[in-house]
Amino acid sequence: MSISKQDVISTYLPELPPFGIDAEAFAPSNIALCKYWGKRDVELNLPINASLSVSLGDLGSHTSISVSEKGIDQVYLNGELLQAESSFSKKVIAFLDLFRRGLDQPVIVKTNNNIPTAAGLASSASGFAALMLAINDFYRLGLTTERLSAFARMGSGSASRSVYQGFVEWHKGVREDGMDSCAERLDMSWPGFRIGLLKVATGEKKVDSRSGMQRTIESADLYQSWPQQAAKDLVTIKRAIADRDLALLGQTAEQNALSMHATMIASWPPLLYWQAESVAAMHRVWELRNAGIPVYLTMDAGPNLKLIFQQEHEQEIRDGFPELLDLDIVSPFG
Amino acid sequence: MSISKQDVISTYLPELPPFGIDAEAFAPSNIALCKYWGKRDVELNLPINASLSVSLGDLGSHTSISVSEKGIDQVYLNGELLQAESSFSKKVIAFLDLFRRGLDQPVIVKTNNNIPTAAGLASSASGFAALMLAINDFYRLGLTTERLSAFARMGSGSASRSVYQGFVEWHKGVREDGMDSCAERLDMSWPGFRIGLLKVATGEKKVDSRSGMQRTIESADLYQSWPQQAAKDLVTIKRAIADRDLALLGQTAEQNALSMHATMIASWPPLLYWQAESVAAMHRVWELRNAGIPVYLTMDAGPNLKLIFQQEHEQEIRDGFPELLDLDIVSPFG
Repeated sequence: MSISKQDVISTYLPELPPFGIDAEAFAPSNIALCKYWGKRDVELNLPINASLSVSLGDLGSHTSISVSEKGIDQVYLNGELLQAESSFSKKVIAFLDLFRRGLDQPVIVKTNNNIPTAAGLASSASGFAALMLAINDFYRLGLTTERLSAFARMGSGSASRSVYQGFVEWHKGVREDGMDSCAERLDMSWPGFRIGLLKVATGEKKVDSRSGMQRTIESADLYQSWPQQAAKDLVTIKRAIADRDLALLGQTAEQNALSMHATMIASWPPLLYWQAESVAAMHRVWELRNAGIPVYLTMDAGPNLKLIFQQEHEQEIRDGFPELLDLDIVSPFG
Repeated sequence: MSISKQDVISTYLPELPPFGIDAEAFAPSNIALCKYWGKRDVELNLPINASLSVSLGDLGSHTSISVSEKGIDQVYLNGELLQAESSFSKKVIAFLDLFRRGLDQPVIVKTNNNIPTAAGLASSASGFAALMLAINDFYRLGLTTERLSAFARMGSGSASRSVYQGFVEWHKGVREDGMDSCAERLDMSWPGFRIGLLKVATGEKKVDSRSGMQRTIESADLYQSWPQQAAKDLVTIKRAIADRDLALLGQTAEQNALSMHATMIASWPPLLYWQAESVAAMHRVWELRNAGIPVYLTMDAGPNLKLIFQQEHEQEIRDGFPELLDLDIVSPFG
């Protein structure tokens, strides 16, 4: 029996101030180089394995919270007022309720994602991280970033990593209440490091990550070796970052991502997030690499690719993938 | 240190007759429902896991061996005389040499594959099985089918299964010389059972199965759980065949095949035999199944799909895959 989110959060909150103060916050998207796949606790989003990501600078979510004068909660997404019953609106308010704790003070929450529409990035990580940061200010909680990371994780696992910029490690933690399952920023940078956001297919994914993880754990024999592989990959990736060794980083991140997809493919029913266009793009990456251009791929629970390379090869990557727009190549370290 | 093929074979051969007598034989192609992936002995093609297949009736290889009057070995493939240095010719003669043992009697070997060209089936299984059966007659070896299966296995692992029709189990065996690693025909039939041969892409595969297996074993952590999964799947598939339970058979065979591909995908460099067209076809199979039509897929180390279904749904399968020609739907039990 798992502890509830509310129980955990209440333990760590200061005494609630009587009302909120208008606040706004930004959190970046992040791309995992060592993936998170599998929960040891579904309620609290506690992971089976530690993961490591790079945040995407100023690409992410801006979220503001203000006191509503209309007597009801209102949620805006990208400038549009949502229906109260919409899935997004309900998730935002349910998360906010964990901190509002019964206080009768309706709010207006506005979220704007500035992720290039062509990128095909999930916005739940940056969205929940920005929401958590805004809540911290709105209710003047004064929480440490570690606590904010742990709480954001309860909204969406990978949101724990989006409270930081740069390279970020999310510790799996061992505590039952999960408060040691938070992310930390790694004291490493890599100015020439680049991420290319290659969108190859559209359409809502049919199986969300949450359900996908559960299906994998329950039905894929091959998942058994995933936790050890991920632990090993994370160590290798940290070393590769420290050495700015793109080949080692790229190889490890690519094999890590493909191994995660392999566990999904080995599930029942089969969980294949790839579309025909994904596979065509994967073969293009491998052709470029075979032609001597150091480029690697990673993929999340969706059909799109993220390319990993260094600044010095940007032109060759653009030649190989002419569909990449300016904004689709991200320089996480400025 | 592995025993050599020649050492094993010589142990079991009768005294060599002074010359060969013209012979010909046929062996069917086979489709594994529980796949063979990984060798415990590379020289003798001894498998890490047992496998189970269904043979494809009169689709396969016809091979004849006759005494050559020209003083040199000659190998024909589908009516065409091959160069002595061609890969196919060298493999055939090297295999025959294991049984000729220095006898100075040149031969003509003619192989004809009647597999529909659209099917994209590998012919090494039926080819080595037919060659072995023809050698048995040519040199009047009088070997049992188990021995023929074990010897054919040294030419190509899955050839061990192609010496039989119907459902066939290839035992992995435990002996060092591999003579217990032979196939046996299962005493089960299923008149309504159908296999659809769906070719979606052309082109020689870039990594042959032999190299692919080695790469997987050496680099994919996820391979660790494959042997146990395959062992479990084989038991389930036998039960499904005995019960003529297509859903159980199809689910197990499909998950088995996708798990095998998953181990390849988790290898380094990644081993992805799928093309864009493969993934498009996989999604089409799943759409048909979601629409209520009991059809399952299996795939070997290549881009093409094999569909598993029953006679009563043949029309719906043909409607869903109009590219299937008459000959592409095989009825293994007549």
